[in-house]
Amino acid sequence: MSFSNNNTSLIERVAAGDTRAVARAISKVEDVSKDASQLMKKIFPLTGKGLVIGITGAPGAGKSSLVDKLALHYRQHGDRVGIVAVDPSSPFSGGAILGDRICMQALGLDSGVFIRSMATRGNLGGLARTTVDAVSILDAAGYGKIIIETVGVGQDEVEVVKAADISVVVVVPGMGDDIQAIKAGIMEIGDIFVINKADREGVNSTEKELEALLSLASREDSWEPPIVKTVATESKGIQELAAAIESYRDFHLKAKFVDGRRRAIARWRILELLRERLVAQTLESNSASEKLDRLAGEVASRQRDPYSAVEEIMGKSQ
Amino acid sequence: MSFSNNNTSLIERVAAGDTRAVARAISKVEDVSKDASQLMKKIFPLTGKGLVIGITGAPGAGKSSLVDKLALHYRQHGDRVGIVAVDPSSPFSGGAILGDRICMQALGLDSGVFIRSMATRGNLGGLARTTVDAVSILDAAGYGKIIIETVGVGQDEVEVVKAADISVVVVVPGMGDDIQAIKAGIMEIGDIFVINKADREGVNSTEKELEALLSLASREDSWEPPIVKTVATESKGIQELAAAIESYRDFHLKAKFVDGRRRAIARWRILELLRERLVAQTLESNSASEKLDRLAGEVASRQRDPYSAVEEIMGKSQ
Repeated sequence: MSFSNNNTSLIERVAAGDTRAVARAISKVEDVSKDASQLMKKIFPLTGKGLVIGITGAPGAGKSSLVDKLALHYRQHGDRVGIVAVDPSSPFSGGAILGDRICMQALGLDSGVFIRSMATRGNLGGLARTTVDAVSILDAAGYGKIIIETVGVGQDEVEVVKAADISVVVVVPGMGDDIQAIKAGIMEIGDIFVINKADREGVNSTEKELEALLSLASREDSWEPPIVKTVATESKGIQELAAAIESYRDFHLKAKFVDGRRRAIARWRILELLRERLVAQTLESNSASEKLDRLAGEVASRQRDPYSAVEEIMGKSQ
Repeated sequence: MSFSNNNTSLIERVAAGDTRAVARAISKVEDVSKDASQLMKKIFPLTGKGLVIGITGAPGAGKSSLVDKLALHYRQHGDRVGIVAVDPSSPFSGGAILGDRICMQALGLDSGVFIRSMATRGNLGGLARTTVDAVSILDAAGYGKIIIETVGVGQDEVEVVKAADISVVVVVPGMGDDIQAIKAGIMEIGDIFVINKADREGVNSTEKELEALLSLASREDSWEPPIVKTVATESKGIQELAAAIESYRDFHLKAKFVDGRRRAIARWRILELLRERLVAQTLESNSASEKLDRLAGEVASRQRDPYSAVEEIMGKSQ
């Protein structure tokens, strides 16, 4: 398979840690192009050195501040830090999340920190797939710590955090009626729990609730997820969080469980990409794209059901 | 194509509004079976009568209480109500959301209300697809109002709410740092905005912020999304919400815009199903399932990249 000089030099520049090349490479994987596939095949062997930290929690939990302060902490210890903020919404908010970041100015001027916001790119682009590809690119570029930050607790967002080496779940004291549901939903994926805004009322009862829920959960490994209290806006508890992450990394490296987790992540990653590629291939062939337009019209006017429409696109029957 | 008596009688019972049949039919579409496809082909022509209301917002916004009170309101006006609660998390929380519902007992004893929680079913099942299929089944069963409730603001969850006839976005006063980001993310999909817990401090500034954001957004139709203030736990503002929903329905029925929206929903629905079917078909054939296991191991140990693994499964090259 031929390989353009352009792509080769892009990979060399990514490997050398050139931030412009990193940005360009990430833009490439956001498109579903052949070029992206060639790029990622060359990127992948360069990965596996960075520590990937997934940080999730409900909106309003102060994840952005926490991520920024953790990034600053790692910078002060000499690590280069990549941040991938997953934003499940559309152009309207594309700028908002980055614009609102508290430490953005401090971090933005620092060439050792790379921040990228990943947004939904229509129906065909897989947010989860592009996010993990972006993480691989940052890994290949030598970022020692790569933080995935997800807004919300959606299905794709949870999957992305599960694909990290370490998953951190952020809660805040007294978030109201839904707290039980939120906690339960993200309980299983947390390797470390953070109670942020821990200067607020209700921190002790939130801690007790968390402990109770944690005692019910059974993990495949024997790790007992610690609870770290932080006030991110005042940089309190950040050192403790970094220490907890380090402990889990040590545990993780020794544990046999790692193989199973890596395998599950690899399997999920292959399936995500397979899904995307199959749809792209199908829509490219058999003038399926025009078929899709016509069938969408027929389904919208109820002349047809979506199931037989899909069968027609797949060429099975009428 | 032959059709089992079993399925035919199931459809007849769904059409007659038999709640057990509805529950059974929804369970069928949660599996990716041929049976489900035959079922949905027969269900689809029976749909189009019910009003589908999507309700979304951040965790802690009190969506469940709001949905329950709105359902009670519709019951008091003689409508049968179907509720599909989308729960993006795993078995651990499967029961939690239903168990925690404030009005669950009152509603649960009422045969005119059907409540179903949809949870993630592993990698292959599409949460969005199963949810819209469940809505179609409830529609076919004659539920006049069908409410989709989503926890979180994830990608799939937003798509599901966009697929409703009317989308209601719920916020609460003063949710902290991330409020700008949350609002921006769900701003575009809201036909109606609810400020719940409107007895709390900060309701006026939240309303002003919302108005400011709304004045920036440009809609394809000329609808100006109203802001409704509620205190769901005290049943305040529910009547106003129902009235706003009715106004939008009237507007919606007259507007030419409806066609475009229906078409976009149909297109999305076909693509979701296509994605699922293509992966299922590929994994059934060419012993792709064993291939997947082996390749997951190779990707996990970094002997291989995910892109060439997918090409092998698709039979393209080595």
